Amino acid sequence: MARDTAQAAVALGGGHGLFATLSALRRLHDDLTIDELTAVVTVADNGGSSGRLRGEFGVLPPGDLRMALAALCGDDEWGRTWADVIQHRFAGQGEMNGHVIGNLLIVGLWELMGDHVRALDWVGRLLGAHGRVLPMATTPMDITARVRGVDPAAPDAVTLVRGQVEVATTEGRIDSVALVPEDPQACPEAVDAILAAEWVVLGPGSWFSSVIPHLMVPGLRRALAETQGRLVVVLNLEAQAGETTGFGPADHLAALFEHAPDLTVHAVLVDSSALANDHARLEKDVADRGARLVVADIAVPGEPRHDPDRLAEAFRRIVDEA
Amino acid sequence: MARDTAQAAVALGGGHGLFATLSALRRLHDDLTIDELTAVVTVADNGGSSGRLRGEFGVLPPGDLRMALAALCGDDEWGRTWADVIQHRFAGQGEMNGHVIGNLLIVGLWELMGDHVRALDWVGRLLGAHGRVLPMATTPMDITARVRGVDPAAPDAVTLVRGQVEVATTEGRIDSVALVPEDPQACPEAVDAILAAEWVVLGPGSWFSSVIPHLMVPGLRRALAETQGRLVVVLNLEAQAGETTGFGPADHLAALFEHAPDLTVHAVLVDSSALANDHARLEKDVADRGARLVVADIAVPGEPRHDPDRLAEAFRRIVDEA
Repeated sequence: MARDTAQAAVALGGGHGLFATLSALRRLHDDLTIDELTAVVTVADNGGSSGRLRGEFGVLPPGDLRMALAALCGDDEWGRTWADVIQHRFAGQGEMNGHVIGNLLIVGLWELMGDHVRALDWVGRLLGAHGRVLPMATTPMDITARVRGVDPAAPDAVTLVRGQVEVATTEGRIDSVALVPEDPQACPEAVDAILAAEWVVLGPGSWFSSVIPHLMVPGLRRALAETQGRLVVVLNLEAQAGETTGFGPADHLAALFEHAPDLTVHAVLVDSSALANDHARLEKDVADRGARLVVADIAVPGEPRHDPDRLAEAFRRIVDEA
Repeated sequence: MARDTAQAAVALGGGHGLFATLSALRRLHDDLTIDELTAVVTVADNGGSSGRLRGEFGVLPPGDLRMALAALCGDDEWGRTWADVIQHRFAGQGEMNGHVIGNLLIVGLWELMGDHVRALDWVGRLLGAHGRVLPMATTPMDITARVRGVDPAAPDAVTLVRGQVEVATTEGRIDSVALVPEDPQACPEAVDAILAAEWVVLGPGSWFSSVIPHLMVPGLRRALAETQGRLVVVLNLEAQAGETTGFGPADHLAALFEHAPDLTVHAVLVDSSALANDHARLEKDVADRGARLVVADIAVPGEPRHDPDRLAEAFRRIVDEA
């Protein structure tokens, strides 16, 4: 059933997971199912080009913002060219090695304009981006994790691990994550977008280091509680070596509720091949939350990544059946 | 007298001098006196951000190309914003210090596209540039100068100085400059633009390190000899400490003809305040070449830089009276 009026959607996440969601939602934007698309992006990265720029300039890490902007570029020559340009990573042997053009462009605009959101909006205009990209908070932060069994000889000892890179690649099992500072100022435009949205999409992505951090920003958590928008959780296709070793779909969902017990979820979207033995438990956990489990083929066959067209089709189904 | 049809113009130079010419010619482009505007830019810089990028990637030095693109940005919000962005120089204490965003963007596009001209055209489209920016040659080069009296104790000894920065700041008096390699491949699109132009503007700018190098590229020199376009030489407002210490307007013109005795000049444009005692000699030298001397107020009053509006007005007069 097609809807009479287009609706606003917000996608929360970071990295390749958010890139997949936005690539899919952009298709719903193109066919006017969605008329306003906003990405709200984790800004806790401390590695690579982003980490170097954050260290040098004390700015937000730009990498995940840049990747979200690339995902929102159009499929025409202009969009494809500028997506390639901003994603381009310098080779060479010198000081520029590993830096990404889009990161430098974003940091330069921040320096020049002194306003995160205005600068990102200008990059978006430049790219002809099919939506808006916002940071989840306006100050950089670190992720910390309480990790059990970092030393296999002491499986119950808890270690505090700090840094997105360190959390994402930790040995042991993550009990919980937190932010430093623990109450970062949410980006006001991101709060407004969540409050105004009909749809909010959370995940997929690095679960503890890109997805759950959104729930730890008090302003975003409040907005998610207050919004009339429906929250769709997109589960990962597989466990991620390091931060979610051994996790099935139900474990991912459980980790979300452990960090935000009051979260109201409309639908949980999971790939059919990722279900395995977890199906019954997941079905029960979703039903207990009053949510709807949507099982669909949303992966690129044989690969652990979401297919934008299939993911778009699943989103369309969820929107149409709401 | 207004002309019936718009005409094509090419400006040869580098640095702030070319920026001034292009800022003026853009006004003639805006009012349709000129319908095609092309900048042909020196690519011999070995200092600053350009020098570092050239050293790291073996590419053309992007700085003068970037400055020319900034000069061609429009006066609307889009043009002013992107001109500011590409001209922005990173502060900070680390590896990015002193790099300029537009330089990084250009080098990134070169890496990505492997085609100097295509990449510059894409940056131009991005900026909404009111004209095209081309390198004078497609391989980086060095400028060398034969300099007399570098050591004041041996005023007649000749020293070979290498590098644009070194030539621009040399002690002593420059006899002549040359390029290494001595016959760089001219950019084919630059040759075509000169051949097709009704107007070619040479100077102002760092005379030995930005202006005369164009005459030392064999392909450009041939194109200047063959074109039906009229050559307008814009003289500097004053001597430049280092490369042209003690030079008056007639010395500048003489240096040009020493490097390119066969050069056909239509008009020589000089600021009235720069003439001083040189007027009679300059008038004779210009007349001897069959050219026309145009004296006009083209400087910002009290400052040693050209005023874009006044320079535009002088160009208009030259075009209208041709």
